[in-house]
Amino acid sequence: MDNSHPIYVASPMLPELSDLTSVLEGIWQSGYVTNHGPLHNQLEQELSNLLNVPTVRLFNNGTIALLTALKMFDFPKGSEVITTPFTFAATAHAISWNELVPVFVDVDPVSMTLDPKSVERAVTDKTVAVLPVHVYGNVCDIEGIDKVAKKYGLKVIYDAAHAFAVEIDGVPISKFGDATIFSFHATKLFTTIEGGAIATNFEGDAQTIYMLRNFGIKNENEVVSIGINGKLNEIQSAIGLLNLKQFPAEKKSRALLRAEYDKIFSQIDGVTVQSFSSNVKKSEQYYPLLIDETISPFSRDDLYEALKRKAIFCRKYFSPICTEFEPYRHFPVISEASVPTVYTIKDQVLCLPFHSKVEPGHLHMIKSVVDDFLR
Amino acid sequence: MDNSHPIYVASPMLPELSDLTSVLEGIWQSGYVTNHGPLHNQLEQELSNLLNVPTVRLFNNGTIALLTALKMFDFPKGSEVITTPFTFAATAHAISWNELVPVFVDVDPVSMTLDPKSVERAVTDKTVAVLPVHVYGNVCDIEGIDKVAKKYGLKVIYDAAHAFAVEIDGVPISKFGDATIFSFHATKLFTTIEGGAIATNFEGDAQTIYMLRNFGIKNENEVVSIGINGKLNEIQSAIGLLNLKQFPAEKKSRALLRAEYDKIFSQIDGVTVQSFSSNVKKSEQYYPLLIDETISPFSRDDLYEALKRKAIFCRKYFSPICTEFEPYRHFPVISEASVPTVYTIKDQVLCLPFHSKVEPGHLHMIKSVVDDFLR
Repeated sequence: MDNSHPIYVASPMLPELSDLTSVLEGIWQSGYVTNHGPLHNQLEQELSNLLNVPTVRLFNNGTIALLTALKMFDFPKGSEVITTPFTFAATAHAISWNELVPVFVDVDPVSMTLDPKSVERAVTDKTVAVLPVHVYGNVCDIEGIDKVAKKYGLKVIYDAAHAFAVEIDGVPISKFGDATIFSFHATKLFTTIEGGAIATNFEGDAQTIYMLRNFGIKNENEVVSIGINGKLNEIQSAIGLLNLKQFPAEKKSRALLRAEYDKIFSQIDGVTVQSFSSNVKKSEQYYPLLIDETISPFSRDDLYEALKRKAIFCRKYFSPICTEFEPYRHFPVISEASVPTVYTIKDQVLCLPFHSKVEPGHLHMIKSVVDDFLR
Repeated sequence: MDNSHPIYVASPMLPELSDLTSVLEGIWQSGYVTNHGPLHNQLEQELSNLLNVPTVRLFNNGTIALLTALKMFDFPKGSEVITTPFTFAATAHAISWNELVPVFVDVDPVSMTLDPKSVERAVTDKTVAVLPVHVYGNVCDIEGIDKVAKKYGLKVIYDAAHAFAVEIDGVPISKFGDATIFSFHATKLFTTIEGGAIATNFEGDAQTIYMLRNFGIKNENEVVSIGINGKLNEIQSAIGLLNLKQFPAEKKSRALLRAEYDKIFSQIDGVTVQSFSSNVKKSEQYYPLLIDETISPFSRDDLYEALKRKAIFCRKYFSPICTEFEPYRHFPVISEASVPTVYTIKDQVLCLPFHSKVEPGHLHMIKSVVDDFLR
């Protein structure tokens, strides 16, 4: 391993090409290539079993899934949706694209997910929903958010793009809230290259989402809602079915990598590694560090640059935060704290390469970079 | 050929699986599976050459392309977009999803595309754009629409889902208007399974659309617009590149089929076959009949049912029309005529199976069904 083998924060998990080709032969024979084909339906069924919810609807990507989930509730235009600024831009964009208003609220310093107290502070008579993000697979304060939501009659739509197959006390994360959105993008633990899903715990949603995903078509003669095209094709569904079999192995490999990273980073002053309650079954989606440069021997940006010089490409997810982006620059971050926590963590966070293609050579190099700082 | 071989209105044109597999090997080796990969970029370049426009941006489907094209112009919310009710629901939905108002206008009895006089009648001070559809590959009255658009300062966005590679006097159809949208769905002459594109004649649009398609991301640190995820992945781009080579053969085969269909139908009283000006290079996307049952020996529905009994599945595209769908039921069809032309043609139109998998046996069967009616 040397500089000629750069390593990135994510690497797509692909099935064996020969396995895929076998399935493609069947698709080519039938000519059934999209529009809720048999492989698509099988993948929905298998995901429904895995996520333990009656309704799973596949989408061509997680953003269109989120867009559609928000549409499903038919909120009045201009209604407010409370969300976190510490997320990928798509979370906020999906709200805006539906002519709803994102209201950004502070996060908890440990889980980096929405702080329920700050959520409650942000509620107005225009608020219709909360859109919390299980960022890095960290579990949101589900109980705290649920309490606020119930008190004010709000819907809760979880963005679980990072939290595939996470369980709490043995309960899949998709059981909570009014809907949960997954992303199956190439950077995700479980991937269909591009893709996503809406999962809900309500059987009646299945038909509603089915129609919204397919132009609102009910049958050959009826279009009953203003739908979109969110269909996932058969080829990507085939990749999903094959990847469902192998993602547990990828997860195991990442768990070992996590242990190695923890060895390198957990003893350094001012560096915080990701931690989980013992009742959480992890997704192993990301390995984020929080680096407090007022204490640690190196800053976040120092480590980022030093690793970059060795062709180890980390990402400062999610910095900048949404309210630093042009479309949301005039939006405040509502917080219980005098200075929002998110302003601090956004300058501290660094996600390391986290997948089975990170080899001992990379680990060795990362360790030597860190050792140089500690010297 | 018998009832055990049903034939449908469309059948996807797929590349040889072995050709695709060779390309997939390269994708698997590089791990570059989406996010504007090399095959994606090559397909955009080849389409840009074919369509003779500087800007071609691929999308995961035609609906998301249309949604994004409308977003690009940043029309004020509630603005009106004049379109045809004689189209697939996606045309109207893309307008509505952007919080714009579709205004439905009558069509010409021959081309079945927007009637410019009716368009002018529908212009109000809220009108911002016209969205004409080259339905069945029939060319809109580009000159007439352009005149109205110029007079009132309206943008023109063509829905060319049915009009891939159509040329007028040697000029590709994408040269006209402010933007042209294509669909590359499996039912289309040129297909990427699911897919689509925005083509424009303005080089400056390329970067705007690039960013809107990818979450408004300008670079690692800047998000400058409210974007969406409209990305087409590498596998589908590979299929597109292979299909670009073979669609002319498919087109030729359909042209022969058209001649056979014309022989069967063009001499029947009350039945009108599709006709084109001599300066139009056709797309060969659909073969629509107009059947005036007050004159013809059979009604549209008679023919539809009789063929269905022989497992020949036609489609009554586009009936019902958009204003018969639940979300648009209260919308009028604005027309120069006392009774809108579209009300008449919607009950007359029938699209026959039109692709290279229609065999002499099918043709024979269709002919005998027609002969039975004529007897």
